[in-house]
Formats: sequence, C-alpha cells, structure tokens
Amino acid sequence: MVIFAPSTKTNKRLLNYEIMAAKPSIPKGTRDFSPTEMAKRNYIFNTISEVFRLFGFEQIETPAMENLSTLMGKYGEEGDKLLFKILNSGDFLSHTGDEELLARNTNKLAAALCEKGLRYDLTVPFARFVVMHQNEINFPFKRYQLQPVWRADRPQKGRYREFYQCDADVVGSNSLLNEVELLQLIDEVYRRFGIRVSIKLNNRKILSGIAEIIGEPEKITDITVAIDKLDKIGLDKVNEELLSKGIPAESVDRLQPIILLQGANREKLATLRTVLKESETGIKGIDELEYILDKIETSPLHSELEIDLTLARGLNYYTGAIVEVKALDVEIGSITGGGRYDNLTGVFGMPGISGVGISFGADRIFDVLNQLDLYPEDSLQTTQILFVNFGEREEAVCLSYLPRFRAAGIRSEIYPEAAKMKKQMSYANAKKIHFVALVGESEIEAGKITLKNMITGEQQLLSVEEAIAHIQS
Amino acid sequence: MVIFAPSTKTNKRLLNYEIMAAKPSIPKGTRDFSPTEMAKRNYIFNTISEVFRLFGFEQIETPAMENLSTLMGKYGEEGDKLLFKILNSGDFLSHTGDEELLARNTNKLAAALCEKGLRYDLTVPFARFVVMHQNEINFPFKRYQLQPVWRADRPQKGRYREFYQCDADVVGSNSLLNEVELLQLIDEVYRRFGIRVSIKLNNRKILSGIAEIIGEPEKITDITVAIDKLDKIGLDKVNEELLSKGIPAESVDRLQPIILLQGANREKLATLRTVLKESETGIKGIDELEYILDKIETSPLHSELEIDLTLARGLNYYTGAIVEVKALDVEIGSITGGGRYDNLTGVFGMPGISGVGISFGADRIFDVLNQLDLYPEDSLQTTQILFVNFGEREEAVCLSYLPRFRAAGIRSEIYPEAAKMKKQMSYANAKKIHFVALVGESEIEAGKITLKNMITGEQQLLSVEEAIAHIQS
Repeated sequence: MVIFAPSTKTNKRLLNYEIMAAKPSIPKGTRDFSPTEMAKRNYIFNTISEVFRLFGFEQIETPAMENLSTLMGKYGEEGDKLLFKILNSGDFLSHTGDEELLARNTNKLAAALCEKGLRYDLTVPFARFVVMHQNEINFPFKRYQLQPVWRADRPQKGRYREFYQCDADVVGSNSLLNEVELLQLIDEVYRRFGIRVSIKLNNRKILSGIAEIIGEPEKITDITVAIDKLDKIGLDKVNEELLSKGIPAESVDRLQPIILLQGANREKLATLRTVLKESETGIKGIDELEYILDKIETSPLHSELEIDLTLARGLNYYTGAIVEVKALDVEIGSITGGGRYDNLTGVFGMPGISGVGISFGADRIFDVLNQLDLYPEDSLQTTQILFVNFGEREEAVCLSYLPRFRAAGIRSEIYPEAAKMKKQMSYANAKKIHFVALVGESEIEAGKITLKNMITGEQQLLSVEEAIAHIQS
Repeated sequence: MVIFAPSTKTNKRLLNYEIMAAKPSIPKGTRDFSPTEMAKRNYIFNTISEVFRLFGFEQIETPAMENLSTLMGKYGEEGDKLLFKILNSGDFLSHTGDEELLARNTNKLAAALCEKGLRYDLTVPFARFVVMHQNEINFPFKRYQLQPVWRADRPQKGRYREFYQCDADVVGSNSLLNEVELLQLIDEVYRRFGIRVSIKLNNRKILSGIAEIIGEPEKITDITVAIDKLDKIGLDKVNEELLSKGIPAESVDRLQPIILLQGANREKLATLRTVLKESETGIKGIDELEYILDKIETSPLHSELEIDLTLARGLNYYTGAIVEVKALDVEIGSITGGGRYDNLTGVFGMPGISGVGISFGADRIFDVLNQLDLYPEDSLQTTQILFVNFGEREEAVCLSYLPRFRAAGIRSEIYPEAAKMKKQMSYANAKKIHFVALVGESEIEAGKITLKNMITGEQQLLSVEEAIAHIQS
C-alpha cells in the first residue's frame, strides 16, 4: 500500500487501520472454544451420549453440507433466509445469463449460484438419512446425533450462528413406551448433571380438543399464551386478553376450568376428561397422558413431572406428546424439548413414518452448570503430573519414568526445556496440574522422585510405584 | 405440475422423473455415517484423543466458518480454488455494480459475494486461534483438535470433500523433546490399535545440506523423488533420472553415498556426517536426529523407527523434523504425518512462534483397521440387552427391571411394542445385541427372567441380580 504525501496524523491512522485489519478475527456469531471450555463441553456431550447409549440409542452423523433441495422449504420462508448457502465451485456464473444477473433477484440468483447449504438443524438431515438408508435401517430406529448446525440469525447474547444440537429420536414406532423411555432418559441425564429440573408434559391432541369444543381451531396459540400469563396477570386479565383476541364470551366461559386447571397431574386429567368429553381427539390425548403417567409410576422419576397445558412448542410439527424441561435453580429458557411427530419423511416421499424425539440444549446446559458450579472436578482436570525439567541429565531420567506413569493411565508430561523453576511452576498452575515431580541430583541418587501436591503444597519423596499409587488414589 | 394432453407413456416417464427428482441425495464427496461406522470412528477418535491427553495435550475447537481473509492465500493458488465459500446473507449483491457483474471475473465476484469460507485444514485456524488468544494461552501450548475440514477437491476413491483431521501440536517451544514425545505418542496410538507400523523420520536441514553441497538448492524435490525409486528401478536409472533433471554429472557423483545410504539409523547418520561435513545446516540436521535417537533409546518404541531421506512432505512448510507413518501390513499411503515449522503465526502478525505437530489420517486408519479386522469387539457393541415385549402386563414388569440394569451401566432397551417374536428377535440380531431377556408369565411368577445369549443360543433362568452379574462378567 502506497500513501501519497500524507500528513503524519493521517499516516498513523492508516497504519493503525492496516494493523487492525491484519489482526485476525472470526465471523460474528461463531466461537472458539478454549481447553477449559472444551473440557466442560466434553463433559456435557459425554454425559448425554452415555445416557443415550444406556437407553439403546445409536449414533449417526450426516455431512455439514446438504443439497439445498433437501433444506429449502422445510423451515418456512424465514428459515430459508437463515440458511447458509455455499457458492458453487469453479465457474459459478456459467448457468446464469446477463439478464438474470442484472435482475438482481437475490432468491433466484442464490439458487443459481449455490446448490449446497449448511445444515440448519439435525431433524431434516435425519429425515433425509432415513429415506436414503431405509433398506439398511433396523426399525424401530433409535438414533442419536451430536453435531453443529448453522443459522444466519442475528447474533445476540446466547444465540450463535454455529451451535451444537444433541438429538435422540425413535422412528418407525407408534408405541407410547418410547415417550416413557425418553422421559426417563431426560430424568437420568439431569440426575447425572445434578441439575434440579421440572419436566413439563402436554399433548397436542388435548390442545386440539380444547380448540374443538370452543369451536376456534386457529386460536390455540392465543389461548395457550393467555393461559400462561395467569400467575402474572390474574384471571380477569387473562379473560380480557382472550376476548380481545376475538374469542367469543361463551367460549371464554367454557375455557374457565382449563384456565384455572390446578392440582396434581391426575386431578388435572380428571377435570380435562369432563371438559373435553365431547372431543374424541381431546379424550385420546388424555388417554395418552394417563398411559404415560401409569408407566412412569413403575419406576418414579427423580425430577418433578408436570402436565402443563401452556406448552405449545412446535405446534405446527408435533402431533402427540410435547415435552419441555426447565431448570429450577436458574432463570433460563427451556433446556430440553421434544415431542411426537407423525410424518417425518413424507416430504421426501416416504409416508407413514412416525417418530418421537428430544433435543438437549448444550449451550444452555453449559450456562446452568457454570452458574450452579456443578462441573465435577475430575471432568476439568487435564494433565495430572508435570515433570520439572532441570537439565539434560535429569531430563533423561524423567524420560525413563514417564512411560510408567502413562502406562498406569496417568496423564503426564515433562516441561520441554530446562526453563527457570518459576516459569515451569506457573505453567503447571495455569494448566491446573495437580502434581509436580521434582527429579534433581539427590532424587536420582536415591532412585526416587519428590512429588509435590500443587493444591496442598505438600511434598513427599516417593519411588515411582509409590508416586503412581498416590496419584491414582 | 400440470401436464397438457400427454400420452400415457410420456406421462409415466414424467412421473418417474418427478419421483426420482424428489428422492433425496447428499452432495458428492460427502458421506453419511451409519451406527456401525460411527462406532468404529468413535473407537478411532477416542483412542487417539485418550493418547493425546495422556501426553498432556488439551483440546480446542474452532468454528467451521472462518473469514475468507483468514483462509485466502494460505494454501497456494490451487488451495484458494478449493475453498468452499459461503454466500453472504441478505442482499449479497448490494456492493457489486452492474459492470462488475457482467465482467464475470469469478475470483473477484466470489470475493464480493462471500466473506466467509469453510475451514480447509486445522492448521491455519489454529494459527489464527493462537494469535487471537495469545494473552490467555499458557505456552508451550500443547493443543489437539479433532474436527472436519472441507475441500472442493474432485472426489475419488478415498478422497472426500468433508473429512476429519486429528492434529496435535506443541507451539512456543523449540525443544527437540517435543519431537521425542510426539514419536512416542504416535507409537502408543498404533500400539493401542494393534497396527504394525514403520515410523519414518527425516530432517529438512539434511535435505537443505544435500542441496547445498551439490549447489542445487531448487532440486531437492527432484532428488528425493529419484532416490525414492532406487528399489524399483536400480541405481543406473536413478542416476539417469537425476541427469535428466538437469543435475550436473559431478553433483550426481557426489550424491552416490546418499542414494546408496543403507544400514541402521546410526550408520546412516555417520555416513551423512562425512558427506555433509561442509554444510553447517546439514550437520545441524544430523545433530537433531542424533539427539532424538538418543532420547528415544531411553524407552524404546514398539514400532520400527527409520531414518528415511526420501521423506519430503510439506517441504515448503517444515523446517526441521519431518515424520511419516506407514502401515506394514496394508498397502496404503501415509497414515500419519507431521514435522516442525518455524513460523506458524507470522502471516497473522505474530512472528517467532515455532511449533511441531502431527496429524492422524482417520479415514485411512479406518480402512486399515477394517482390512486387518482389528476393531475390539466391545467397541462395536451397542445395546447389551433387549427385553422382549410380550404385552402390557409383562411390559410393566420389564419396565420395573430396566432401571436396575441401567443403574449397573448396562445398555438396555425394551422393544416398544408387543410385536411378533420373530420380528423382535431379528431386531436384536440386526442390532447385534448380545442378550435378550424373556419375561413371560412363568418368569413373572418365579420373579426371574430368562436370559438368552444370542451368540451361543444358551438360555438361563436368573434373578435380576444374577442376570446383571452375568452380563457384566
């Protein structure tokens, strides 16, 4: 870059700008994960995967890139806009005429320039997977998947353009036993994390039943949103809101027992059974919830399970059970959600495949575990022992010891050069290494090592075997 | 789609076409991974990660998308072409004038339409990470990273557009002890896999020394390529090839001891020390290899370690050690490679950071383990026990047993519906489930379960505790 006759001030500003421009950055809404963050994330992913496997789920992976023909039209018009599209390789303009270019229709041009996109969730790629591999799949197919997804959303606190989803689904089985197992699975995951949660359960058929008896099928969302405000604004305001949404007074009257629905789950269902007695769909929803409650009682959950009619997530999508999990001790949105859907693969020409699935929100669980300080100490520990490097002779002795520690499964390293003691110790501290081995002249003569506990400061002169045993204990 | 007055034949063809078009597919060069493939891949990744951690490496992750300013110009002109570029969101044409559009300069237009790309390897994002986080990093930084990378390469057998890299690097330390530790790490990984390998070692400084003494610095690659053919074509043809590449006869004469270099590692180095005595750089390379051999002898490797001057991978990049691993029992290219580089982060304005690293080729290791049938049986096992579903009453009993098996860490499931016995058994077979639990009326009365071993066919009537103990043993 050549700058002509600049004033010193301008010059300086330009140079600063150049330096700033050269400094690398990452795309907005994306993140790097440091070793400590990775340790925490691995703890989360490992815990969830282990429970998935404990319940018989098997892992699959799909490519980051899908054909846009697979992705487009599956997430609504808004979703299409949020897809990251990948420019075709080579001469990406070859199929586009001048006129088309100058028309500047971004949707059309994007379709001409790009045939691939990054996956937006794990559900559509899973549906595509089921259709493509239907002849190899062993149904009922219990699959789990832990992979990143990408959305060109406006980044904000807690919302990223790249984030992981952790999904488990059972497809090819209508049995409600799958719902029961998934509730137990959720319960086991949060028991392991030590997070106290409330598992909220609803059924789309009950919501349909409510809409049916008051004759306002398109008002389900308005109704659930209004009911959800009962605690905050009181019955009168809820009723006002319902009327203001165009629900006739008579229907609002019929909704009163539902708005005021309280008590234990069984009591709620009993009340609903009376209110919805004229709706076949509604009664079916109640039967389904009764069945689930019956089975869950066989081995009760650690978490509280609450029937909650205001649960209306994925209303366009779910056809039976709807589930959502709230942390009891942290103010944060839902940390797990899911439900039953009736037609996963119809859009890809394979009708009649019902499924039920859940998705864990890894980023929110990360925050909850952070806030409650619930990471087990050993999940965060990296290297367990650092051999201090005193020089070439001592180094050689340490090198002969190291394989024995590693053979015992102890994560071990030696500082790679004979740097100042202070530097080596602060390396150990920064890496949160629990033990430091000091092997100097006197230790070599005695055939031992001085093992220093970096937390207590305690030092012991031990043989290699003793040191190994001490670290393992 | 409306078809006007079609003949039946045309109509049918069009309909078939429609159905074919609707059938989903994935972008060429990408792959889905089935549960069995994932189990194998997880075995590979878990083994490598475990050894990385055993040697004190810590994991990081970087986003799939990097700014193109980070990626461009780092992989040569060919590499730039192989980057997958991501179309800017929203009105991606807003900064491009009509003239620019009609000029159809694909490079310029790609730069105007796209500011992000998918990562091409893990090294450049790692360099970017080190620069961005230099104030938080604890140097020497021993990091590992296991993530997919994307390249718009022409797909062919064994070459994919999305594949995983497994890298470990130590940066911020010039010590050759890092090379020693990485060789031991490689050795331990292949010992665990049970793959017999030869670890080939070279040093860029020796190659530079050779070029120096024959006065042909730009001919290093030609020389190593020719020498590599000695076994296949014999000395005369090698010399012919060298002459044909424009190397003077006198220089070819001086190369004879190097072409014919044989014997144990120490002998090779002794010969080289004589041949290269006039090259300071060459002698430094020999010293480095001697040091590494000395230290490795402290605790000998399981694998054979061979000094191999024909190793010239990453010649533009590596400045010291060069390492490559070959499987002894399978014909396949290098399955691990690496070396030392002197200036990882200079391109991002942070000079003087030296590093040494290795990269495991997960896809090739996958093939080697497959060909040699080396996957441990328990790495492939999914669910350990399936409870057959005989109906609602039996199901309830099974549901009360299941949590006890899971609490014992046994991966367990119940078939979700009372399907025909044959269907349930073939589900267990297809999923390679080892045990099946039969809980019928007589078992319920006896308070026991019939445990069937699906491999031996053996059946035993056991209590829950006995069944758990049996499966665990």
